[in-house]
Amino acid sequence: MTSLDLPVPPGFTITTEVCRQVIDTGEIPPGLWEEVDAAIERLEAKTGRSYGSGPVPILLSVRSGAKFSMPGMMDSILNIGINDEVLESLISWSGDPHFAWDAYRRFVQMYGDVVLGVSDHLFQEVLTELRRDRGVTDDSKLKLEDLQSATHRFKAIIEEHRPGELPTDPREQIRGAITAVFDSWTNRRAIDYRRLNGIPDDLGTACNVQMMVFGDLGEDSGTGVCFTRDPSTGQRVSFGDYLQQAQGEDVVAGIRNTVSLDDLAELHPECHGELIEIMEGLETHYRDMCDIEFTIEKDTLYILQARIGKRTAEAAVRLAVTMADEGLIDRATAIRRVNPASLEQLHRPKIDQAKAPSPLVRGVAASPGAATGKVVFTSDDAVEFAKAGEPCLLVRPETTPDDIHGMAAATGILTSQGGKTSHAAVVARGMGKPAVTGAAELTVDVINGIASYGDIDISQGDVITIDGTTGAVYPQQVDLIDPEQLPELRTLLEWADEIKGMDVRANADTPEDAAEARRLGAVGIGLARTEHMFLGERLEVVQQIILSGPGEERQEALAELERLQVQDFEGLLEAMDGLPVVIRLLDPPLHEFLPSRLELGQEALVRVRAGRPIDDLQAMSEQVARWEEDNPMLGLRGVRLGLMLDQLYLMQVRAAVTAYDRRVADGGSPKLEIMIPLVAATEELKRMRQMIDPEIGDRPIAVGTMIELPRAALTAGHIAEVADFFSFGTNDLTQMTYGLSRDDAEGLFLRAYIDRGILDSDPFQTLDVRGVGRLVRVATEEGRETNPELTVGVCGEHGGDPATIKFVKSLGLDYVSCSPPRVEGARLAAAQAELAD
Amino acid sequence: MTSLDLPVPPGFTITTEVCRQVIDTGEIPPGLWEEVDAAIERLEAKTGRSYGSGPVPILLSVRSGAKFSMPGMMDSILNIGINDEVLESLISWSGDPHFAWDAYRRFVQMYGDVVLGVSDHLFQEVLTELRRDRGVTDDSKLKLEDLQSATHRFKAIIEEHRPGELPTDPREQIRGAITAVFDSWTNRRAIDYRRLNGIPDDLGTACNVQMMVFGDLGEDSGTGVCFTRDPSTGQRVSFGDYLQQAQGEDVVAGIRNTVSLDDLAELHPECHGELIEIMEGLETHYRDMCDIEFTIEKDTLYILQARIGKRTAEAAVRLAVTMADEGLIDRATAIRRVNPASLEQLHRPKIDQAKAPSPLVRGVAASPGAATGKVVFTSDDAVEFAKAGEPCLLVRPETTPDDIHGMAAATGILTSQGGKTSHAAVVARGMGKPAVTGAAELTVDVINGIASYGDIDISQGDVITIDGTTGAVYPQQVDLIDPEQLPELRTLLEWADEIKGMDVRANADTPEDAAEARRLGAVGIGLARTEHMFLGERLEVVQQIILSGPGEERQEALAELERLQVQDFEGLLEAMDGLPVVIRLLDPPLHEFLPSRLELGQEALVRVRAGRPIDDLQAMSEQVARWEEDNPMLGLRGVRLGLMLDQLYLMQVRAAVTAYDRRVADGGSPKLEIMIPLVAATEELKRMRQMIDPEIGDRPIAVGTMIELPRAALTAGHIAEVADFFSFGTNDLTQMTYGLSRDDAEGLFLRAYIDRGILDSDPFQTLDVRGVGRLVRVATEEGRETNPELTVGVCGEHGGDPATIKFVKSLGLDYVSCSPPRVEGARLAAAQAELAD
Repeated sequence: MTSLDLPVPPGFTITTEVCRQVIDTGEIPPGLWEEVDAAIERLEAKTGRSYGSGPVPILLSVRSGAKFSMPGMMDSILNIGINDEVLESLISWSGDPHFAWDAYRRFVQMYGDVVLGVSDHLFQEVLTELRRDRGVTDDSKLKLEDLQSATHRFKAIIEEHRPGELPTDPREQIRGAITAVFDSWTNRRAIDYRRLNGIPDDLGTACNVQMMVFGDLGEDSGTGVCFTRDPSTGQRVSFGDYLQQAQGEDVVAGIRNTVSLDDLAELHPECHGELIEIMEGLETHYRDMCDIEFTIEKDTLYILQARIGKRTAEAAVRLAVTMADEGLIDRATAIRRVNPASLEQLHRPKIDQAKAPSPLVRGVAASPGAATGKVVFTSDDAVEFAKAGEPCLLVRPETTPDDIHGMAAATGILTSQGGKTSHAAVVARGMGKPAVTGAAELTVDVINGIASYGDIDISQGDVITIDGTTGAVYPQQVDLIDPEQLPELRTLLEWADEIKGMDVRANADTPEDAAEARRLGAVGIGLARTEHMFLGERLEVVQQIILSGPGEERQEALAELERLQVQDFEGLLEAMDGLPVVIRLLDPPLHEFLPSRLELGQEALVRVRAGRPIDDLQAMSEQVARWEEDNPMLGLRGVRLGLMLDQLYLMQVRAAVTAYDRRVADGGSPKLEIMIPLVAATEELKRMRQMIDPEIGDRPIAVGTMIELPRAALTAGHIAEVADFFSFGTNDLTQMTYGLSRDDAEGLFLRAYIDRGILDSDPFQTLDVRGVGRLVRVATEEGRETNPELTVGVCGEHGGDPATIKFVKSLGLDYVSCSPPRVEGARLAAAQAELAD
Repeated sequence: MTSLDLPVPPGFTITTEVCRQVIDTGEIPPGLWEEVDAAIERLEAKTGRSYGSGPVPILLSVRSGAKFSMPGMMDSILNIGINDEVLESLISWSGDPHFAWDAYRRFVQMYGDVVLGVSDHLFQEVLTELRRDRGVTDDSKLKLEDLQSATHRFKAIIEEHRPGELPTDPREQIRGAITAVFDSWTNRRAIDYRRLNGIPDDLGTACNVQMMVFGDLGEDSGTGVCFTRDPSTGQRVSFGDYLQQAQGEDVVAGIRNTVSLDDLAELHPECHGELIEIMEGLETHYRDMCDIEFTIEKDTLYILQARIGKRTAEAAVRLAVTMADEGLIDRATAIRRVNPASLEQLHRPKIDQAKAPSPLVRGVAASPGAATGKVVFTSDDAVEFAKAGEPCLLVRPETTPDDIHGMAAATGILTSQGGKTSHAAVVARGMGKPAVTGAAELTVDVINGIASYGDIDISQGDVITIDGTTGAVYPQQVDLIDPEQLPELRTLLEWADEIKGMDVRANADTPEDAAEARRLGAVGIGLARTEHMFLGERLEVVQQIILSGPGEERQEALAELERLQVQDFEGLLEAMDGLPVVIRLLDPPLHEFLPSRLELGQEALVRVRAGRPIDDLQAMSEQVARWEEDNPMLGLRGVRLGLMLDQLYLMQVRAAVTAYDRRVADGGSPKLEIMIPLVAATEELKRMRQMIDPEIGDRPIAVGTMIELPRAALTAGHIAEVADFFSFGTNDLTQMTYGLSRDDAEGLFLRAYIDRGILDSDPFQTLDVRGVGRLVRVATEEGRETNPELTVGVCGEHGGDPATIKFVKSLGLDYVSCSPPRVEGARLAAAQAELAD
């Protein structure tokens, strides 16, 4: 990195190390204030001005030196060092009482808000009143006496809320401001943000102290923000805002209209030229797009701050590829520059923020993209609307596996409960549908078909819009922008594919999903869940199989289902022709296909009240009771069901083999793999193979198993004797290893655990390396020791998580499999993992 | 071992190796029959008699040479080598057509039954008819023509069922008999027995072929069985049965009365003397009690078979200790001789088998000992009866945690469902109460208060008797024998304690259990489950805590519960004064203390039908819904509850500390340890300690954790940083590692898995070494690496299982903890484990 010579106001920096000491000990390290005093003395000597007294005063700004701006983190405090005495010096130095009083007003307001925690709302009320009395809309139009009045009233407000705490001593002011920067590191919102973005809590922030330069010293002064390229699109265009006669916060406050950089060229041609040169220099220096704050004081340009600029996903991709093309960075750097998790957004319709109204409520941004449509409250209604060609949004308190068909039919999902890992969120992300969850202010009354917020009622058929990227819910239609094709994305992923040493497959249960996944670059299906094929219209046939017991009726139902499954499997093999397709035999407990006794009891109550008979419900209830389990997750499911009800798995294998044969007969190149779920003991898989291998015969069809129980991982060396492949079902493996059920835990304690830092991150989003990851490592190593030909992959939701991809890449896994919308991100993450090795 | 010179009839042995080949290949190894022919030729040469022809015939017997007799295993086939021609030789050799025809009749009957599988019932019908016609009760009183008729009719019966399969060629007969011995090794019942007793399937059996000597050649002949000591009591007394003019099976058939060995002394003084000498020789040789079959042929004694004798638990203990005292064996051998699992029986009342009627039905022998009492169908009734001083038996289809108070009140438990590991079985064993489970022929109608079997109805208040040692259920009072004090047991356990390198603690929740455990030799409480203290009358207070939410009402309920818990804990510490007491904080999910919505719904249905309001039920149902989980086992319980509802754990710790202080004030020496359940992450335990350590202050109270989740085991090296001790909760650890819920799995597939050999044994009875055991090993090693002072124990039900004790001893664990009735067995098993090292 070449060094840069920037016109920065003089000042000094307190290092990150100090912040870390504050985090560790909760106290300012001894000697710090003495060092600050000495630094200020050096500043006075250098500038010939003085802090706190003297004819030519210095005011200071304090700014966090964190590499990223974080919500909740203190950004800056300006005009530090002012009091009644300094005010007088400032007036005589500037010859402008209006400017000086405004600096005083700003200091009191900002210090009161940011350091002392007095709500800014109280100060704004005063300003609003003053503007109204004066008949202006802009603080800069206030008269001197207004500013004096504001300053006095602000002091009174602070005195009321934090009596005696507004320091008049400039030394105390600077100490308070520095302390506030460090304290804000442990601010709740900053902690949340770091947690969400994987930034370590002990990183800390530096603190920059600068001499104030004033953008509000007259018309030949001003302040601005600019980016070296457009942060929304990544395009190489001039991008910035400038505001004459103003201080930093005025630019973003939005009361006065800013002008563009081109306008700046007219106002201050010399400064503009200098700025453009600096922007180029900064970009060359940082080899990335930069975000710059600058001030012009009496025609002199000062750079206050420059850092790597935040960008949208689209901009990130375009910046990475164009900068690589320009030779500014190499391809590896381009690949590293883009957050894999963000790629999903590129394919979703967006809200046109410029035209968006204000939202009704906000929930959790659970699955990105926006959707607009008519409200429905039940999954069956969603299906009805979809059939009629009406886009609809499914609105529920929460969703359950019973809602899969409704979620598939809806264009978006809105729930009043649940977070980022709720059923609705997980399934929506899997389906690539926008979702807002946990919109807690919304009361969803499914029975009466009304969602309400205060006085506002939303009924079935009303059009609303949700933005899963921001969590916003709008009670009307909002214009959406269709996603554009981004040629740079294709280029970036081509570069990624050249590098990555691990395949990316997709989890897909339908030919449509399979085709979509293939288009997005998946090189196979890592998990086709057959249980989703058992729902909808087929549910009745499935119930017949379960409830009829062995005999002719069951046989007929099985034959019917076999016929349908052949079609299912043929479609998948065709869509993925030439690429591997892993079909997992039925996994969930059978009673998931039956009504619950609780529901039957509720219906019985309704009927009895209406004087109708309930014999059929009671009969059903007795049958269902046989299959109900206290802990279905730990019950009769997967291979256990396959061994106890052998007809079912045999039927599925026969259907898969028939589909395979048909594809071969049609000239296709099917690559079928059959996966047995929930194996805990080698003998289970051995027995199952004895049962199904004769159906497979000498066809080149691999048979393998999920590794989703701790015991399977711990005994993988044995299981590998009878398995052609392993696929880690990391969702269940996490549930069993932690002993927690995701659905139950989410609301009852898991979210609280993460919020309170008991868990560093959600183990269902990023694989827990220390516990679950250890099992993955053991199973991979010992499985391959037994069977060096063993193919090993991951098919849990973690398969799309970049951190998890990096971890499993380090173990040498062959592939990850994830939902289609996450395939591109996974390809990129796999390349990043390779680069990290 | 000295060699023995016994008067054994001449013969030869086919080795176990041959049997193993048969097991492996399913076929008789080539060349075997040629070897058998050659051996018979040598036998002919040695005796000067001939097999199959010739003037002095040889008949052969074939006998399994298995070390143990096994149900389903073929024991012997006698009189082999007879046909019409040989019959004539036998008549002329013996001069006794009655004897010869009887040998023929016996051969046809036995070969038909044992080798050809024709039901013996058909043959017995013929004999019964002949005896009736002849007016006798004993086959030996039948006339010659009766025996001839029987032989012909037996042949016809065989011809009808297995046409052409009764061989007349003596060579074929011996081959068929030998094959039958080997085949019976893989007989279903034999397999079950081996599984239950841990005998490997590939052990195999030898096959002994002997020349027949005849106990039925006249009054100077006879046959008998004797033991070198009394196999029921182990006492050194003459013990045997002798039957004049008879063959082996007549002794056990019980048609004619046998005489004692003393009587034999009168009949055959010389043979008797010889037998007594041989018995002594055999005991000295085998250094154990022997079971001997002998025959006297014309005043000459032959020993047909001698093996280690089976014995009762009482006999095993007495034999071991007296033989060690006699110097026949050393103390280590004495300790090895006794099955630890059998000791539990010694403290239970027994059925006086001599006086027992035949049982009504048989179920699973779930918890040993017998109990008699009045039938009750609900736990509340059990409590009522117990209060009134009426011994009662709780009869249910199955039991649930709601029945704990009823099970505690009853003297025994009988269920129509469930096996050896059902809730009823596990809890009954834990409580040391007799139980019969899975008596499937019994229909238990709790609603109407009737248990029925065919026409027989048993109503509330009827007296029945159950025998948990055999599984028998009697529809009346049966005399019970009280257990005697067995001084030899005390001696044996003293020897065991001198050897064992691992402590045995007990799982006990009440002062009574603690005192009992201490009496049985427990050196502490390894697990005091506080949840049992929350039931019964206190349930209402607990519900108040859960449902009231934070606030005064909850505080009051907590205070009330704290007061009660202080008493609970004080009692435990007093009963175990000077020894460690591990108190585990509340573990199960809170909704276990609430009614289920299903139950509430059922009650609502009843009320609506009766026209009564259900508002209270609906209100309760809504409150309960908040706590209901799909998989409570994986939900909000243990430390999770402790962190989310911190008042609860704090209250428990305060109560424990108060109890500790009171004991100290009373001059006691309490050794309190506090255990946090269900820890998955170090941070959970760390936070919990931050919360409770201030309550503990500087008292020497250890704080540790259960290791019952796979993740806890996998990260034990970290957890040990903040734990003073580990205790493996092997029940939950097994559930999570296998991903199976014991209660759900038992009936739905677990029993079938064990029956079909998919699992070698029930992982809830004997620890799964390969999977769960690996976690125990990893956690122990890594925990101790971090914290060398770490105390490590096992407190799951496995703590009382000898195989598990042996395994954890090999890992160097400090203690096992088990239910009080299993403490003595565990002490013995710990000594055996030490000896095995």
